[in-house]
Amino acid sequence: MAIVVQKYGGTSVGDVTRMKRVADRVAQTHRAGNQTVVVVSAMGDTTDELLTMADKMSALPPGRELDMLLTAGERISMALLAMALDTLDVPAKSFTGSQAGIITDGFHGKARIREITPGRITAALDEGNVVIVAGFQGVSHDTKDVTTLGRGGSDTTAVALAAALGADVCEIYTDVDGVYTADPRVVPNARKQDRVTFEEMLELSAQGAGVLQVRSVEFGRNHGVKIHVRSSFSYQQGTWVLPEEDIMENAIISGVAHDTDDAKVTVQQVPDKPGVAARLFSALADANINLDMIVQNVSAAGATDISFTVPRAEAQRSHRLLAELADDVGAVGVELDDKVAKVSLVGAGMKTHPGIAARMFQALSDAGINIEMISTSTIRISVVVADSDMAEAVRAVHDEFRLGDAPVEVA
Amino acid sequence: MAIVVQKYGGTSVGDVTRMKRVADRVAQTHRAGNQTVVVVSAMGDTTDELLTMADKMSALPPGRELDMLLTAGERISMALLAMALDTLDVPAKSFTGSQAGIITDGFHGKARIREITPGRITAALDEGNVVIVAGFQGVSHDTKDVTTLGRGGSDTTAVALAAALGADVCEIYTDVDGVYTADPRVVPNARKQDRVTFEEMLELSAQGAGVLQVRSVEFGRNHGVKIHVRSSFSYQQGTWVLPEEDIMENAIISGVAHDTDDAKVTVQQVPDKPGVAARLFSALADANINLDMIVQNVSAAGATDISFTVPRAEAQRSHRLLAELADDVGAVGVELDDKVAKVSLVGAGMKTHPGIAARMFQALSDAGINIEMISTSTIRISVVVADSDMAEAVRAVHDEFRLGDAPVEVA
Repeated sequence: MAIVVQKYGGTSVGDVTRMKRVADRVAQTHRAGNQTVVVVSAMGDTTDELLTMADKMSALPPGRELDMLLTAGERISMALLAMALDTLDVPAKSFTGSQAGIITDGFHGKARIREITPGRITAALDEGNVVIVAGFQGVSHDTKDVTTLGRGGSDTTAVALAAALGADVCEIYTDVDGVYTADPRVVPNARKQDRVTFEEMLELSAQGAGVLQVRSVEFGRNHGVKIHVRSSFSYQQGTWVLPEEDIMENAIISGVAHDTDDAKVTVQQVPDKPGVAARLFSALADANINLDMIVQNVSAAGATDISFTVPRAEAQRSHRLLAELADDVGAVGVELDDKVAKVSLVGAGMKTHPGIAARMFQALSDAGINIEMISTSTIRISVVVADSDMAEAVRAVHDEFRLGDAPVEVA
Repeated sequence: MAIVVQKYGGTSVGDVTRMKRVADRVAQTHRAGNQTVVVVSAMGDTTDELLTMADKMSALPPGRELDMLLTAGERISMALLAMALDTLDVPAKSFTGSQAGIITDGFHGKARIREITPGRITAALDEGNVVIVAGFQGVSHDTKDVTTLGRGGSDTTAVALAAALGADVCEIYTDVDGVYTADPRVVPNARKQDRVTFEEMLELSAQGAGVLQVRSVEFGRNHGVKIHVRSSFSYQQGTWVLPEEDIMENAIISGVAHDTDDAKVTVQQVPDKPGVAARLFSALADANINLDMIVQNVSAAGATDISFTVPRAEAQRSHRLLAELADDVGAVGVELDDKVAKVSLVGAGMKTHPGIAARMFQALSDAGINIEMISTSTIRISVVVADSDMAEAVRAVHDEFRLGDAPVEVA
């Protein structure tokens, strides 16, 4: 008997009709003889509505209470799904994160799963139930308070449960039918991928492809969970996320991701002395601001511009902080540009195929697009461009590597 | 340092403004140096909205899942209240029924509290927090599933917590400013009572005065909890519910209650043989239908009419059940009347003041009102009348005993 973990996002359970459709699908999986565990998110906009209520109550609500509030969302959707299954004569039991044994650290709003003790889940499965688990939530190991895992946390709940239960597959149902070579809204001939490696998926998620939360992919990779990303609105195969060794034929490039959530900050004419850059970056780190790309130009006349990207929501705060510091360290000023976008090319094949970066830069240049910053990993090349150039840049790179065609495979 | 338990109903926390007003009141109680425990209901119509969602999902939702769903309501209100207190610099922690140690039996939708293990509450109080507890909910002793206590269950949560914590007072905040001699909407000169005994309050609650849930009063009586029923919209004293020995001067009559939730069922011409009535009543008991008043006329010609009241919601079902049985037992037929109301006069002084019933019946007769059924306890007289006569009957009885005047006290 196979163990199947399915995760349905907020859009998939957005209203009564959709919830019933999910129930049908779960019932089929159950009737096919699988031990079925379903992870659900809050319905549609519930989480945003709860956040709006919190906002009316307090400008800065305590994390513990915000988590208590938000976890009401999955509680509602999981109970309703259990009721819908009951009408289909499928016995179902819903469990909160706490009841499901999802033990986390104590960081409210962005807790990390430390351990899963799924005793109640396996007992309920062994009694023949479909088990429904609230996504996105857990209980802290130390204080026994309710915690949440952050946006997209239901993906992580699902993959972590699949790991803990030794599930045969973790199906992530969403409103798109898989992982595409680019966002189809930007690139009309973008192509659905049949499979990507964990490493590729990690880069794609981190660079703005919203299909899977980064942490869920890390969890999948570390515990060897087979993830199947697919649409809750069709029965077609989606995209499998697999260990590299399970993918016999590797595409060179798996896709182009884009991201408009960052802003670019430039500290101008920073004196080229040891310790100055460190001082700027530790000030940001102390303020809990995450930097992404960092570029330092070649020094000219003993001073250099340092540019980096920060989350757009932190842009003003970063600017203020650095403007105060600029004088101290002898820099000329701080410039903020929040009209930028990041375009990333990701592919496991890059490791063995040199020249990918050069082709990408040439394609952008041919399209008349100026590259403002560059950063790379072993399987990714990212550039920062003006956000008005973003769509054109994605299309140019997608075309250059013919990603809309049947995949180019390498052994 | 006094321990104060306060309970706020759904109307008191019905929107953001009201929630903030409740926070102000709680903050005052806390700043006055009291250890403060607050029990909250779901906001406004939340519970009804959740029930509507459940109804769309299933005609008969499983009790376990319905309880899971409904408990989202208090979760939302308690977290928001904690946030509002935080903005007033009052440290507050909210706890679900389960976290608060409210252990119940396993009857979903109408669970009874078996025990309270308030370890986390006392710890949080000792740390200087206001403690907020979700009303209406608990966790079952055997299955660890979430349970609810039924409509009005937050009153019981509050009184039971007050008992477990040895609280100095349990304040029940509601949208009226106390217990009245009659419903002011029916009797304009109805008077707020300063104090009533537990026995009187029990009868008043059971006979339709909606201020306190019956079980909460039982709990208060059994554990000697002083209950103060008052308005969340004013700072005036409300009504104290106290043991009889704590009330030095007892009013003869504490009030007139009315109730239109019942229907009258009459089985006509039941043969006057042993076992026949028992057979009718056990059929209803087996169907889980609660009878209230039962009247059997004097037998004439070997047969008699038997009338009783049942909850109006069960009227059709009772009628069907008895119509099937009537033939079997040799009765002529079954008549259903759901246009009835019950009017009850309650007062601890009745025990020592004979003639109260006669005066009540005379007053009704003078008002031209026909009495259809009568039942009594040591401190209550109830009559069933046509529901079109209800308001007039309440006023007539209220006037007869001059309940709108300053109270008549007896030693």
